[in-house]
Amino acid sequence: MTLNRVLLCGIDGYLGWPLALRLESQGFEVYGIDNFSRRKIVREVGSWSATPITGMQTRLSAARRILGAEITFLEGDLREYNDVARIVRESKPDAIVHLGEQPSAPYSMIDQEHAVFTQENNVTGTLNILFAMKEWAPNAHLLKLGTMGEYGTPDIDIPEGFFDIEFRGRKARLPFPRQAGSFYHLSKVHDSANIALACKIWGLRSTDVMQGVVYGSRTNETEDNQLLTRFDFDESFGTVINRFCAQAVIGYPLSPYGLGGQRRGFIALVDSIKCLSIAIENPPDTGEYRVFNQLDEVYSVRELAEIVSRTSEGLGLQVKIGTVENPRIEQENHHYNVDHDNLRKLGFQPTRSLEGELEIMLRDLVRFKDRIAAKRNVIAPKVRWRAGVASPEAVYAQTERVVEPEATVSVVP
Amino acid sequence: MTLNRVLLCGIDGYLGWPLALRLESQGFEVYGIDNFSRRKIVREVGSWSATPITGMQTRLSAARRILGAEITFLEGDLREYNDVARIVRESKPDAIVHLGEQPSAPYSMIDQEHAVFTQENNVTGTLNILFAMKEWAPNAHLLKLGTMGEYGTPDIDIPEGFFDIEFRGRKARLPFPRQAGSFYHLSKVHDSANIALACKIWGLRSTDVMQGVVYGSRTNETEDNQLLTRFDFDESFGTVINRFCAQAVIGYPLSPYGLGGQRRGFIALVDSIKCLSIAIENPPDTGEYRVFNQLDEVYSVRELAEIVSRTSEGLGLQVKIGTVENPRIEQENHHYNVDHDNLRKLGFQPTRSLEGELEIMLRDLVRFKDRIAAKRNVIAPKVRWRAGVASPEAVYAQTERVVEPEATVSVVP
Repeated sequence: MTLNRVLLCGIDGYLGWPLALRLESQGFEVYGIDNFSRRKIVREVGSWSATPITGMQTRLSAARRILGAEITFLEGDLREYNDVARIVRESKPDAIVHLGEQPSAPYSMIDQEHAVFTQENNVTGTLNILFAMKEWAPNAHLLKLGTMGEYGTPDIDIPEGFFDIEFRGRKARLPFPRQAGSFYHLSKVHDSANIALACKIWGLRSTDVMQGVVYGSRTNETEDNQLLTRFDFDESFGTVINRFCAQAVIGYPLSPYGLGGQRRGFIALVDSIKCLSIAIENPPDTGEYRVFNQLDEVYSVRELAEIVSRTSEGLGLQVKIGTVENPRIEQENHHYNVDHDNLRKLGFQPTRSLEGELEIMLRDLVRFKDRIAAKRNVIAPKVRWRAGVASPEAVYAQTERVVEPEATVSVVP
Repeated sequence: MTLNRVLLCGIDGYLGWPLALRLESQGFEVYGIDNFSRRKIVREVGSWSATPITGMQTRLSAARRILGAEITFLEGDLREYNDVARIVRESKPDAIVHLGEQPSAPYSMIDQEHAVFTQENNVTGTLNILFAMKEWAPNAHLLKLGTMGEYGTPDIDIPEGFFDIEFRGRKARLPFPRQAGSFYHLSKVHDSANIALACKIWGLRSTDVMQGVVYGSRTNETEDNQLLTRFDFDESFGTVINRFCAQAVIGYPLSPYGLGGQRRGFIALVDSIKCLSIAIENPPDTGEYRVFNQLDEVYSVRELAEIVSRTSEGLGLQVKIGTVENPRIEQENHHYNVDHDNLRKLGFQPTRSLEGELEIMLRDLVRFKDRIAAKRNVIAPKVRWRAGVASPEAVYAQTERVVEPEATVSVVP
């Protein structure tokens, strides 16, 4: 099976953009769709990317000029079936990488409107992709970005999607139960169930990636200033290591939530891109729904704060570790043992160490220190799982709105 | 805890209307909301209720006149948060019974539009109810209608929602994995996960009812012609026993799909209403999410065809059993052993035998034979799981559209 054409849903995002550049450099023909939702909702919560990312038109021109990458882009909304149908028909993909979702747990917990938006956006987008595949790309491989958060933190080991159990003397292989802890994480659980059904009844093939928390500020292909990928550090869209690094460079105390004993799997951006690329090159069989747990190492949030603090001090940054009441409802001390063999069996070897990557990140972020400092108000958590927030305004009315350059757009001919 | 006020979401439906009348007769103050979606979508597929149900205004007046029942009704859409907020604030419910969903698997499998409608309608409606409860009725008991179809047909026994297992030497109590077989059934799985989270993080209380397939044409309170509940017999909205009875009275061959070895749990309408009423009278604790499997007996579809055929012949009806290619993708011969102890522990005893209820149903339906015969084209399955349908028109353009009297409406003062 020769793989030539890849469609990236959510090509404008943190993972989508570097993945597009990587796949182009590997010789794939890359198509992308995005509705710039991420830029809009980060603006809504009063934040921006620490890296000053360029608009889509500039990105695309720079990719062409600097890397010789010809990416075909459509501005479109995955909730609109016409948009999805159009890009699937026109790109005739061998693989579809679906990164095009609202990706923040706190954002989904702001209030009713944000919870409904998150689930409707994510579930409808994925359903639309499945139906478009059935019609126009039934042999394509759907590589869907899920999250390790789909599993929650059960008191037993977490296998890759399925487990064999015995119950009352009978044996069965069952989907591992999902116990996600936010309406966002649940939207991914809903997606997983919908995708598994589509594989079963329509013979589609899919890899559902339960991804650990990603950290990192660059890949080989994003070094040029016009090709930077976004880097969020606010409470909603910043992942924990990224947030800690951004806090370190502006002298803001690192903020593990609660006891900080929450353990999670982590993976460097470069290695995440590598995993996705390995999954694309090794598609599942027709009708197969498989699950990859995509992570490198497990740390507790407190350990991370300590490692970031140590590494920062090595670079001459003064860093304290603060305490923050946990806004989420989650176990702060728990069993966490996660299988992650499937990608290794396909050849994945992590290339980054946490400390090494932290040095790169901290050096990168020092350049954008002023942009982080300008938005320091978005760092402290304001969305509370138990109560929501008093009013959504409390979340995003705290910083002056600074308008980022609007994304501009080229359209599939 | 004195229970006085019950809000029924989906009060206009097959279960909602008789439940409203029953609860009124038990002394509850009953509030209802409905957007008449069921009437509209049954019309969309070219069918109607075998029983000539009256419009809402007529129903409400008749209930007042005949039963002395004062039901407060709001025409509203559960997808509109304002509607949900309004009825929850105004009814101040002790219990909310949520029956207000798109309830058909085949309807959800027609095409992209119907799948997305089903999941968005059901998931958003339930999320809106949860958020409104959090704000205005945090102590109310949410009694949510799920379906036994959420579990699918795993090769092990099906417990009530949760099971205790051992995995790699550690023990855990986990949600029983859901493997639903249609986008409709999955919408209920999504709901279940959302409700469990709301109970956990907000301390709401809920009973999630995994209901078996309901059959029956009347309850004590619906005997008057103006108080009839609906009775669907088309491929999408008719449940299997109800469909078989409708087929029997017009001499249309009974149509088990495929081998007919599919085993399911069944419960009579009267007993379903009784179970719901018992659940309302026995609310769970604050923060508790509990699951009831609500069924009486398990039959295979072929057994049912044979029992309906025998009972019909006893009433002088000539009935054949036909063969129909299975339009669904499902096991036609499988293990099916389902726990259903929770309701019995609260005192539920089934009051109906299948054969006895069938006689009542067949006698009822003979009165409405012409209405069934007029729509005989909606009986044969046209929606196919594997391929969808060639065009949605194929599903619902086969019969002349006959306009039912529109529901008329009284509004909460």
